Amino acid sequence: MNTATAFADFRSYPLISALTAVQALADRVQVQWADGRSSPFHHQWLRDNCPCSHCVYSVTREQVLEIVDVAEDLAPASSRIDAQGCLSIDWQDGHLSRFDPGWLRAHAYDDESRAERRARRPQSQLWDSRLQLPVFEYQALMEDPQALLQWLLAVRDIGLTQVRGVPTEPGSLAQVAKRISFIRESNFGVLFNVQSKADADSNAYTAFNLPLHTDLPTRELQPGLQFLHCLVNDAEGGESIFVDGFAIADALRREDPEAFRALCEIPVEFRNKDRHSDYRCLAPVIALNAVGEVAEIRMANFLRGPFEASVDDMPRLYRAYRRFIAMTREPRFRLTRRLNPGELWCFDNRRTLHARNAFDPASGARHFQGCYIDRDELLSRILVLQR
Amino acid sequence: MNTATAFADFRSYPLISALTAVQALADRVQVQWADGRSSPFHHQWLRDNCPCSHCVYSVTREQVLEIVDVAEDLAPASSRIDAQGCLSIDWQDGHLSRFDPGWLRAHAYDDESRAERRARRPQSQLWDSRLQLPVFEYQALMEDPQALLQWLLAVRDIGLTQVRGVPTEPGSLAQVAKRISFIRESNFGVLFNVQSKADADSNAYTAFNLPLHTDLPTRELQPGLQFLHCLVNDAEGGESIFVDGFAIADALRREDPEAFRALCEIPVEFRNKDRHSDYRCLAPVIALNAVGEVAEIRMANFLRGPFEASVDDMPRLYRAYRRFIAMTREPRFRLTRRLNPGELWCFDNRRTLHARNAFDPASGARHFQGCYIDRDELLSRILVLQR
Repeated sequence: MNTATAFADFRSYPLISALTAVQALADRVQVQWADGRSSPFHHQWLRDNCPCSHCVYSVTREQVLEIVDVAEDLAPASSRIDAQGCLSIDWQDGHLSRFDPGWLRAHAYDDESRAERRARRPQSQLWDSRLQLPVFEYQALMEDPQALLQWLLAVRDIGLTQVRGVPTEPGSLAQVAKRISFIRESNFGVLFNVQSKADADSNAYTAFNLPLHTDLPTRELQPGLQFLHCLVNDAEGGESIFVDGFAIADALRREDPEAFRALCEIPVEFRNKDRHSDYRCLAPVIALNAVGEVAEIRMANFLRGPFEASVDDMPRLYRAYRRFIAMTREPRFRLTRRLNPGELWCFDNRRTLHARNAFDPASGARHFQGCYIDRDELLSRILVLQR
Repeated sequence: MNTATAFADFRSYPLISALTAVQALADRVQVQWADGRSSPFHHQWLRDNCPCSHCVYSVTREQVLEIVDVAEDLAPASSRIDAQGCLSIDWQDGHLSRFDPGWLRAHAYDDESRAERRARRPQSQLWDSRLQLPVFEYQALMEDPQALLQWLLAVRDIGLTQVRGVPTEPGSLAQVAKRISFIRESNFGVLFNVQSKADADSNAYTAFNLPLHTDLPTRELQPGLQFLHCLVNDAEGGESIFVDGFAIADALRREDPEAFRALCEIPVEFRNKDRHSDYRCLAPVIALNAVGEVAEIRMANFLRGPFEASVDDMPRLYRAYRRFIAMTREPRFRLTRRLNPGELWCFDNRRTLHARNAFDPASGARHFQGCYIDRDELLSRILVLQR
């Protein structure tokens, strides 16, 4: 039975506690576990999750049963713990379902089991100017899946990493990115070249300083990860600056809750337009998840459109926006480093704001390449490496 | 002045009504328009939106001013309507700003102006089985920007279109897609081949019927547009079926408000896993926008993980889910068509659910190619074509 459930989603579900008793109730089965926990499973839920080969196609591991094809009041004719310790149900319509106790415990939805799973969710580790920068070696990432996993966990949980020892041939970045996934293309290309250009279509392609920002706030889904790979850096200036946007939002929430609320509630438009494209996105600077945690920062002053709040909200929005920008300039939050050839930044673009000091293009060449990968691809690669 | 603001965002702002009077208040300038409207503009807003070449870099059309670098209480020394009809402001710190009246009116944020803009937002046109299918010709789309625009507006507002006369060489779809933008890659590739395969990594690549679904509900951002291009269709069966998910959600809201609420509130996990990837996304089946309109449907029964709602919510969720699936099967909503070689479907994957009847692979060959483009790229192309 363990193999039957394991092929269904490439995971194994160790036996945490054995099933000791089953009680039949009107709309559910109540099971007892050896460690004392008690978990209800509604009849509909059990029938819906039947792992048998009639209900799940083994080649694709995808469900072919649709629960609407089963009577809404279907109930077990009998339910019991079988000789292998599985929950075995004979349904009134003749179907038979067997549930591995490891799988069942991993999907139990009693309050205690749900709280346990919530507590195991990965947590962001907030940082400030004192961050011990997580540094990884190119060769190890390319060869060793465990080294790759450690890097990706740091990207996920800290949101700022550096990789060293990367070849400085143009295009090498794509090899690093492909250890995770395909690259997310944008109107700036698959790999983009960050160089000062006469016909710049973004301030990124000038020698100006760039204030702290996220990339592509003009898209509904900002890119999850951003890579910046240094090929040549002989110009004076151009240091990279980072802040943890989640740490700033967290401090703002404590120090100025009214400003925090304004940035969560009042949407702001970001715009990026050139001869061939015209991107616009209206969204708040700070996005919260379903449980009220800071989940995303969206910010690039140079891509912002005119505020379009109500007359009453406008002073509130300007006060909050000024406050947030002022905080990104506070030394307590800022980490400043010069990137050398063969080094690359990989950071969470929806959390970690990045900036660049102005540089002097007359003092020497400067050539970075960049690309994006989405958070879905990062999390998928982590899950595969953790199998 | 018109040219100065036009280069800033590639749009022109016709003069709707002339400025007739300016009144200086403590924190704002109140302007009067010839048609009687009165619009306040806060000092911070005006200074922030100064279009002069010190504040906006003309090559990139991006702002270099950061409002936090201006005193929070900066006020005009004087404000007036100049000889060209512009609002002209001499700031106390010596800076000068001039605002074109067409641009200013287009960005006014008095209640009436905001309501006017909200009313002009594109509206989804709901449809059911009686839809007069919008059909477009390949050759026209490839050659005529106005024909291209008409197609894209139908995709945006109706969410289901067909294109005819497309070459049946594999890869032709990419040429059509590129009239809009680059293609969004996924773990299934850039162009994916929909054929029955022995080693299928999705039920899509079998000959099974597929129930009504959206593609990639396992991603934080479901692909905005889906294309399905028929190269060969000699097999019996395999008809395409579509429903307007927004129309079903709208009917559900009226006919069973409790079920509608459950599908908006209780998140559901979708999963797609194979040897190389493991995608998971937890989100509600129905997403609403900031003003409570149905904005997105997320649904694929064969990619759904076990429900993980609370014990109290579980029966509520099953009742609502069953009801939604049952509605997708009602003839009043369903449009069924067989796609012929040289035809393609292009539809809003976050709104229009699609399905396929089972086909008999022994009866003849069947080969479709598909790809995705995101909504951002669709909307950008529409804005560029409308310039």
